[in-house]
Amino acid sequence: MRRPEEFKEKQGIDVLLRHRVNRVDPGAKQIEVEDLEKGEKKVLDFDKLVLASGARSRRLGMPGEEAANLFTLKDLGDAIRVKQYLDLRRPGRVGILGSGYIALEMAEAFRERGLETTIFYRGTRPVSHLEPEIGERILEELEENGVLFLPEHEPVAFHTNGGDEIVSLETSKGRYPVDLVLSALGVVPNAEIAEEAGLRLGKAGAVWTDAGQRTDHPDIYAAGDCCEVHHQVLEDSVYMPLGDVANKQGRVAGENAAGGEATFDGVIGSMCFQVFSLEAAATGLTEKTARDKGLDVAVQKIEASSKVHYMPGAKPLSLKIVFERPSGRLLGGHMVGQEGVARRINTLAVAVQSRMTVQALSRMDFAYAPQFSGPFDPILIAAEQAMKKL
Amino acid sequence: MRRPEEFKEKQGIDVLLRHRVNRVDPGAKQIEVEDLEKGEKKVLDFDKLVLASGARSRRLGMPGEEAANLFTLKDLGDAIRVKQYLDLRRPGRVGILGSGYIALEMAEAFRERGLETTIFYRGTRPVSHLEPEIGERILEELEENGVLFLPEHEPVAFHTNGGDEIVSLETSKGRYPVDLVLSALGVVPNAEIAEEAGLRLGKAGAVWTDAGQRTDHPDIYAAGDCCEVHHQVLEDSVYMPLGDVANKQGRVAGENAAGGEATFDGVIGSMCFQVFSLEAAATGLTEKTARDKGLDVAVQKIEASSKVHYMPGAKPLSLKIVFERPSGRLLGGHMVGQEGVARRINTLAVAVQSRMTVQALSRMDFAYAPQFSGPFDPILIAAEQAMKKL
Repeated sequence: MRRPEEFKEKQGIDVLLRHRVNRVDPGAKQIEVEDLEKGEKKVLDFDKLVLASGARSRRLGMPGEEAANLFTLKDLGDAIRVKQYLDLRRPGRVGILGSGYIALEMAEAFRERGLETTIFYRGTRPVSHLEPEIGERILEELEENGVLFLPEHEPVAFHTNGGDEIVSLETSKGRYPVDLVLSALGVVPNAEIAEEAGLRLGKAGAVWTDAGQRTDHPDIYAAGDCCEVHHQVLEDSVYMPLGDVANKQGRVAGENAAGGEATFDGVIGSMCFQVFSLEAAATGLTEKTARDKGLDVAVQKIEASSKVHYMPGAKPLSLKIVFERPSGRLLGGHMVGQEGVARRINTLAVAVQSRMTVQALSRMDFAYAPQFSGPFDPILIAAEQAMKKL
Repeated sequence: MRRPEEFKEKQGIDVLLRHRVNRVDPGAKQIEVEDLEKGEKKVLDFDKLVLASGARSRRLGMPGEEAANLFTLKDLGDAIRVKQYLDLRRPGRVGILGSGYIALEMAEAFRERGLETTIFYRGTRPVSHLEPEIGERILEELEENGVLFLPEHEPVAFHTNGGDEIVSLETSKGRYPVDLVLSALGVVPNAEIAEEAGLRLGKAGAVWTDAGQRTDHPDIYAAGDCCEVHHQVLEDSVYMPLGDVANKQGRVAGENAAGGEATFDGVIGSMCFQVFSLEAAATGLTEKTARDKGLDVAVQKIEASSKVHYMPGAKPLSLKIVFERPSGRLLGGHMVGQEGVARRINTLAVAVQSRMTVQALSRMDFAYAPQFSGPFDPILIAAEQAMKKL
């Protein structure tokens, strides 16, 4: 971690920590800044401004949410607070609200510490924005690892001990004793400051930018979890607060604020994560998203082995590809399995992003060695079978 | 393994084992077959013929090469013979001739059994057809694992004990006592039968075919290690006897012999292998092959981490990409490292085969999770740096 002095010395950058920006005035090209240590406010001029206000954990707005044993997990400080609480208070029963990546990864972390772990989710299966096949497989993995997944449980109330500790969680289905609650309900963009400044927001409610990360004000840029991103396959802007996307946007915003002409083409929705021994990965559109877009969609699902079946460590792998008829254009790929999943998805990502058809994909020359894949990689098998549906 | 009767019952296919084809007569559309059990010869008519005569291990043609302790490794029978000899005779010192995949994989197998293992090679580094950076890294890996690699050693003579056992190997540099010799000098196509029938051979001396796996005779097809294959990036035919290529050719030859219209576009040279804990993988052209083709070539090498550096199991990885100027077209990718190499190469394979530029490659949206890759995958880093050389 670099100190503010280092930024100043090495790069001539002033870093003002504990300074909150209260207001952006695009017309006057000024910002109002409050020094939180001294309580002083000052107005600073800007030639170019980059908004990187990030996102914050979503809150339910229910009484008890400020309890000392309810945690969110957005940054390193949050993680340290959870860990300290676990070490000091040794809770036995953990309730997790939500069922995204953070919820699942934390379920694993809690189970590694031997805690009784329950996921309460209002939907029917984990990571509901992904293919149902992935969610179903994750359900099995959670069960095998002793995580209780309670579907269709909408949080209704936190019951406290009269003090600052939640003792039970009430959902639409019942009341459950808990010693710790992790609220992992996703994030909302810190877009209010942009909205108050009159800057344009996208349809998902985050800051709108063009491919150069410019807002609708010519001297104000935005990057990261506060803004939306163009989805190349969906051909629309989406809110996708992911670390690698933020990183790319930041570089483009910085370069252009300094007079450059960089662009960021946007994303295609490539992602991967791990829960216990299971890897899940996706790129492009899901079947549902593709259908909702009004496309003539077909899918091909296959079960394959991550490597040649007689090799040690070979594991089953499920692959689903989504493609358009009659063109055969590949729209998305979705994989889940215990081995060789995450590192395979980028192969499909290149195919999706370059608008390849399943016909072309089936003719790719892939590397073969039995400890890494079969002579026909699962991707080739899926593409070849898909061709019969065109 | 299926018995001949099963082929007959299930698919109506006659399988004649221990029958050698001595001659093909394209004009009469007949083959002469010899029953090796009964010693009888017979002539069979064909409407369509598929040549799948494969390849055989390359021989030096030196006295002593038929010794009982000299082995080649082409099929399962060869492997069983080596294993039986090791179990029964317990040799202590093994000499390996050659330095391709088989030589390297067997060096590992011999070391696992604790044998003193020496590779004798006439070149300067292993897998000399791959990038020198890969060969250099393999040299380190061999040394770390106790394999002696002797470069610029041309075999001159096998010295026997007067009987059928080699006791020492004489090379251009000296004489070395050995208890077992593995001759891993590659394979030569069994193309003589095609040549004698007057069928066209390619420039590498294997059977020539078109994209439908047809030879220059309209009713004779060829597939597998007996024939050449079109290299899409080299734009020329090459001899590349690999299992997955043979598999694809066989399917096309079979389909077309049965009246179909299948085609096989050929290869781009994708391959991967493992030696001890090291993975190596390549796709497309090497720097040398690209220059030999007369292209204006540039390369970009990077050292990266296989996953985010703080994750357990993160290992350094070397990546070299080869691209054309001024277009930026990606011509090849070459990787070596202890983790996350083989499964990454197909991402580059899709890019090479679809004639992508490094500019386009640098904009790919790849999946990110710290246990699988950094926010900028090594491939993206290499592509971005490559753009500065255009």
